[in-house]
Amino acid sequence: MDRKQLAIEKHKEWKGKIEVISRAPITNREELSIAYTPGVAEPCLLIAEDEEKAYDFTRKGNLVAVITDGTAVLGLGDIGPSAGMPVMEGKCALFKAFADVDAFPLCVNSKDVDTIVNTIALISKSFGGINLEDIAAPRCFEIERRLKEVCDIPVFHDDQHGTAIVVGAALLNAVKVTGKTMGSLRVVINGAGAAGVSIGKLLIAMGFGNIIMCDINGIICEGDAGLNSGQEEISHISNLHKEHGTLADALKGADIFVGVSRPNLVTREMVASMNRGIVFAMANPVPEIMPDEAKAGGAVVVGTGRSDYPNQINNVLVFPGLFKGVLAVRAKDITEPMKVAAARAIAAVIPEEELTEEYVIPSSFDERVVLAVANAVAREAVKEGINRIPYEEIR
Amino acid sequence: MDRKQLAIEKHKEWKGKIEVISRAPITNREELSIAYTPGVAEPCLLIAEDEEKAYDFTRKGNLVAVITDGTAVLGLGDIGPSAGMPVMEGKCALFKAFADVDAFPLCVNSKDVDTIVNTIALISKSFGGINLEDIAAPRCFEIERRLKEVCDIPVFHDDQHGTAIVVGAALLNAVKVTGKTMGSLRVVINGAGAAGVSIGKLLIAMGFGNIIMCDINGIICEGDAGLNSGQEEISHISNLHKEHGTLADALKGADIFVGVSRPNLVTREMVASMNRGIVFAMANPVPEIMPDEAKAGGAVVVGTGRSDYPNQINNVLVFPGLFKGVLAVRAKDITEPMKVAAARAIAAVIPEEELTEEYVIPSSFDERVVLAVANAVAREAVKEGINRIPYEEIR
Repeated sequence: MDRKQLAIEKHKEWKGKIEVISRAPITNREELSIAYTPGVAEPCLLIAEDEEKAYDFTRKGNLVAVITDGTAVLGLGDIGPSAGMPVMEGKCALFKAFADVDAFPLCVNSKDVDTIVNTIALISKSFGGINLEDIAAPRCFEIERRLKEVCDIPVFHDDQHGTAIVVGAALLNAVKVTGKTMGSLRVVINGAGAAGVSIGKLLIAMGFGNIIMCDINGIICEGDAGLNSGQEEISHISNLHKEHGTLADALKGADIFVGVSRPNLVTREMVASMNRGIVFAMANPVPEIMPDEAKAGGAVVVGTGRSDYPNQINNVLVFPGLFKGVLAVRAKDITEPMKVAAARAIAAVIPEEELTEEYVIPSSFDERVVLAVANAVAREAVKEGINRIPYEEIR
Repeated sequence: MDRKQLAIEKHKEWKGKIEVISRAPITNREELSIAYTPGVAEPCLLIAEDEEKAYDFTRKGNLVAVITDGTAVLGLGDIGPSAGMPVMEGKCALFKAFADVDAFPLCVNSKDVDTIVNTIALISKSFGGINLEDIAAPRCFEIERRLKEVCDIPVFHDDQHGTAIVVGAALLNAVKVTGKTMGSLRVVINGAGAAGVSIGKLLIAMGFGNIIMCDINGIICEGDAGLNSGQEEISHISNLHKEHGTLADALKGADIFVGVSRPNLVTREMVASMNRGIVFAMANPVPEIMPDEAKAGGAVVVGTGRSDYPNQINNVLVFPGLFKGVLAVRAKDITEPMKVAAARAIAAVIPEEELTEEYVIPSSFDERVVLAVANAVAREAVKEGINRIPYEEIR
């Protein structure tokens, strides 16, 4: 059986990849009267007095909503809310498997920003955090921005920031391996969608150097017409010398290429024009340039989104630990410094002496990652004063 | 430790009464590639082609949302959405414990009918059914009615119909025990809120006889001013002789009293004025009349909502099996005949020769109930042609 057929068979067999079970025993009248009426009235009354107590008496303290509108599901595009649910369920299964965080999948049947924001905000009290997923750009920028304003729990669009954090971690180690100097690097990001813009912002915050964003029309420059809100925002802090030109122009002398775009856009020659290039080509399943080609062009470190090549960029390194950390201190938000802290924590999981050109990012199944990320994020939340309870080491 | 303190301690210990776990193993790259990318794309594409496949490939087929606005929680009233969550979680725990149906608790932070309806409708594709809970009357009538119109999955306000179905079941057996004749009975229902109106409608559909609804102002009569939509609807089919008067007037010669109102409203004398009365006094925790008093007044069968007296009316006899049944045939709705079928099924669990005045309704923990209800409801859904897949016996 090939993998496609196996995936279908397994999904049929599972009948859903998540399950809601009871944590309270209910086998007799006495237990029923504690978990349900009349006993349940007591925690209700305590929460009515002090809403923060919902973290103590309900699942809120360990519960994340994984929410999509089904408009940008994997590489499949706008396949609709119901069709996006297998991915959302998979994400929830990963939350539980990697971090023991409960996550529940929801799809919103609308493509209207106001409607999506209001719907999610209205049910947000049921959760301790919100993970947005597979929502198309540029809608995703505004949905996340507005939800962060109206919700008092963390809101995180994983396709933007999860990817950005892993890329940030991998590049940090790649810079070490290559002996390049942080701060003076020329970084070209191709693809100015949700992930590309977030990667750009995070790399700027982490101090890599001059970030050049490119899209299908070439280099993006401040003042360009037709930029969406995310692109416009980053245009003010990237492309510091107001360059214009093609992707090929941008790559000349560049230290780093980050691709979140389409297959086969980068040639061996373009890589050869780079300055001992670090190449992360993450178009899926076929990258912007295949690793062997990139190496042949002179790239020193190469990464992709694929598990069959070294240096796989996989968001599963981020979101389980990130939400475990914010839930541990009941954080109200996920800030840019918390993302930076997560990236640094992932990078630091690999001891410097173990770093090689083929090993700049931990494996998806490296068990050290989740606690490293969780603790780093929780500590940073406390530093910023957006925690509700004190930090204790997460073990 | 008293029960209140015990309930608080237990809820703190549980940290939530539900938990979301993974049904898919994710311990290595191969498993990850089946449950998540790239394998997950296959079920997504199949659902995109045919939305009904969501029942096969996601948890939708066994998943109910338990949703409140927090406005009528237990007897506590409008304590807000967060404070209602321990009850919603408890309900979800009962769904799993009694019927192996997954249920997930949500609170909507609004008291506006349009907003609540839209919010729930927009996320409804994530579920196979919706159980509304603890929403105040008269808002609950319109919310349920409109949701039933816009959703293609069953919507059920348990406080209305769950109670009605158990009462219907208990009364059916009480009528048998007392040798009264269906069709010619005078039934007085005190309390014309959500539960009272639904009980009235169901008893009419089941053919008990002349139903007299009473509220705080006495007997409700067609054309009365100030009736809400639910009361107005039932006024056309109840109180067939257009009587006016007090609750005491209504009870004279009545065969059945059903109380969903307030403690101590019914006196021994009022019961004595009934015709060998069947008295179900369900105000909680103190009934309209205590069982001993009712018996002293000549009541033949007496029931309450309490577990420390015989004939306890408890919704847990209904909702687990009801949703198990509708999910088994993927029903699009829950209709009045399906509720009648559920009531008859619960009543029939007790063999006629075992019926006594103190045993007209099965125990909450009677394991025969859930399958009896599930099969009856599923068969009835098929009979009405609102099933998506054929009926097979539920075991």
